Amino acid sequence: MKIFPSSLCDIYEGSISSGLKKVITDLNASRLIIIADENTLVHCIPKLKNVIDADYIITTKSGEHHKNLDSCKAIWSKMIEAGADRDSVVLNVGGGVVCDMGGFSAACFQRGIQFAHIPTTVLAMADAAIGGKLGVDHEGFKNYIGLIRNPAFVWIDKSFLETLARTEIISGLAEIVKHAIIGSRNLWQLLSEVQEIDDIPWDKVFELNIPVKAGIVEKDPEDKGQRKMLNFGHTIGHALESYSLSVNQHLTHGQCIYLGMLIESKISATTGRLKNVDFEAIVDVIDRFRGPEKFSLPDFEKVKPWLLGDKKKSKGKIGYSLPEGIGSCAWDIMVEDYIVIESYEWLQAQAKSVPFRLSVDE
Amino acid sequence: MKIFPSSLCDIYEGSISSGLKKVITDLNASRLIIIADENTLVHCIPKLKNVIDADYIITTKSGEHHKNLDSCKAIWSKMIEAGADRDSVVLNVGGGVVCDMGGFSAACFQRGIQFAHIPTTVLAMADAAIGGKLGVDHEGFKNYIGLIRNPAFVWIDKSFLETLARTEIISGLAEIVKHAIIGSRNLWQLLSEVQEIDDIPWDKVFELNIPVKAGIVEKDPEDKGQRKMLNFGHTIGHALESYSLSVNQHLTHGQCIYLGMLIESKISATTGRLKNVDFEAIVDVIDRFRGPEKFSLPDFEKVKPWLLGDKKKSKGKIGYSLPEGIGSCAWDIMVEDYIVIESYEWLQAQAKSVPFRLSVDE
Repeated sequence: MKIFPSSLCDIYEGSISSGLKKVITDLNASRLIIIADENTLVHCIPKLKNVIDADYIITTKSGEHHKNLDSCKAIWSKMIEAGADRDSVVLNVGGGVVCDMGGFSAACFQRGIQFAHIPTTVLAMADAAIGGKLGVDHEGFKNYIGLIRNPAFVWIDKSFLETLARTEIISGLAEIVKHAIIGSRNLWQLLSEVQEIDDIPWDKVFELNIPVKAGIVEKDPEDKGQRKMLNFGHTIGHALESYSLSVNQHLTHGQCIYLGMLIESKISATTGRLKNVDFEAIVDVIDRFRGPEKFSLPDFEKVKPWLLGDKKKSKGKIGYSLPEGIGSCAWDIMVEDYIVIESYEWLQAQAKSVPFRLSVDE
Repeated sequence: MKIFPSSLCDIYEGSISSGLKKVITDLNASRLIIIADENTLVHCIPKLKNVIDADYIITTKSGEHHKNLDSCKAIWSKMIEAGADRDSVVLNVGGGVVCDMGGFSAACFQRGIQFAHIPTTVLAMADAAIGGKLGVDHEGFKNYIGLIRNPAFVWIDKSFLETLARTEIISGLAEIVKHAIIGSRNLWQLLSEVQEIDDIPWDKVFELNIPVKAGIVEKDPEDKGQRKMLNFGHTIGHALESYSLSVNQHLTHGQCIYLGMLIESKISATTGRLKNVDFEAIVDVIDRFRGPEKFSLPDFEKVKPWLLGDKKKSKGKIGYSLPEGIGSCAWDIMVEDYIVIESYEWLQAQAKSVPFRLSVDE
């Protein structure tokens, strides 16, 4: 078991059997309440039950579609039913949806009780569980309702990935690729050498990935400055995700972020921030990672309302986070609309010219 | 215009025409969004419109019954409709419900935007607007969903009280009486001399009241220690209020707190913390302030579930905040159930023996 030094919270990596029980006991919870979803209830909770005793398990429905206030209301009602009080502790066992929503529910219950994350997906281990961003979607707008509060601890046990669907692994890798591009040449080097998803050296990947995410957040917990680097790929990625939710297309978060990173890297290259060699390397790695799934890029006009409603919008302007090479990223960059559209249409054209890798599937 | 020194936020007292415009301008809002209720929309917003320009007004329904998550959802949808972004500012214009709920809505919108309070009731001016406690009720449990975050500023303009119903003034005075009992002999002296509600010297009252509330909160913003003093009267008061909401009896918050303070003072006297002379003085002032409204105290068994579900409960035990004289209060005091019941029944018997002041109305 390894502990990462972080001012945010304790971040452990290793088997849950090697110390989780003590870490939880130390929180001195009046009641320990697990929040899981339908998947982790089946695949992860049995493992956990061998290690710790929970007083109550709250199960939510799986998927981004259920990351909303109605699910929170149901969680809060269950917490009352469970007899949760201000000294209770919530343990979120699941992916990004469970961590974001369970954390938000705990952070607002009786004006805030302690919570911890046991992420069970690549996405949650690499990104969602670290940094304290909590919340739910509202009317299709991603993470519009939430707050920033750090968990008591995060415990990363890669054995939970054994039961994870391959599409979920691919999706989660998008945030790791992002962390490499914006903040770690070493991580980038490691990812560049990966030939097969099954061969990913997870220990090494998390060891390089966690300090990037935690390091950026530590320097700007309130998201006023450099934390915005983490938005790379997300301004356009979230617009695509919101659009896909609105038309029931079910693109994964990671797929949207891969696409967002491609388009935003193109913007960065077009505006002279990113050298062509780095841009091509980014396209190459992303295309290798995101796999051969088919998808259709909607016309820009369809995505536009979501893009203009994006919450990174400030005083009516959207500030982009754009890479300036591998391991470095600028933020709050204003981009002319026509460059955004051109870059979007570049990817759309790629999709048409390279069937399969970026095929149109309508 | 007077500014109270406080580390919580700037607290202004005076006419809104004497500087509110500049204070708001200094917040540099991308959009200024007012949250009002049906009452303040009619009685207060016109006054405000003479002083400041808002981009959008969101109106909520009046009353504790509407302080819930469904109202928040409606507010959040309106905020999106209003084009609110992370640089927008929410101005809550109303009583405790508007300040608590509007503040919570702002504090969770896009993970938290700035907000300020213009309290328009005695309760909000004296208590709810100061200290950063935000939230809504859930399934009848008071303030179960919320968080602690301070506004950018609070502006207290007593002229808003001119249109306030007398029952609301009486209700709000309960928190001022509480502040006097737990923390200010000077305020207690002032209140003891008041013969008629209409003669209350508001400037002087707020001048003594605000430092009590702000001072306690400053020393314990997260409610882990001495802030619990502010719960005096509220452990039983909230149980009565939740019960009254559940049976549609509509007791005001203040009436419940007066009753809670009477019962909890009796507990304090019974357990030897409060001298009889102080106990009698408390009963005397409270009876004078809370007016001649008729009400019925339900049997203890009816209130019990609400009392046991009270959020001050910690590890199954309820910690009471009990005065130890005028201007001093202990907290986290465990009290045997039979003493709570005896004290409750003392007040119930009072009600039966003194028709009118404490009459049973069934």
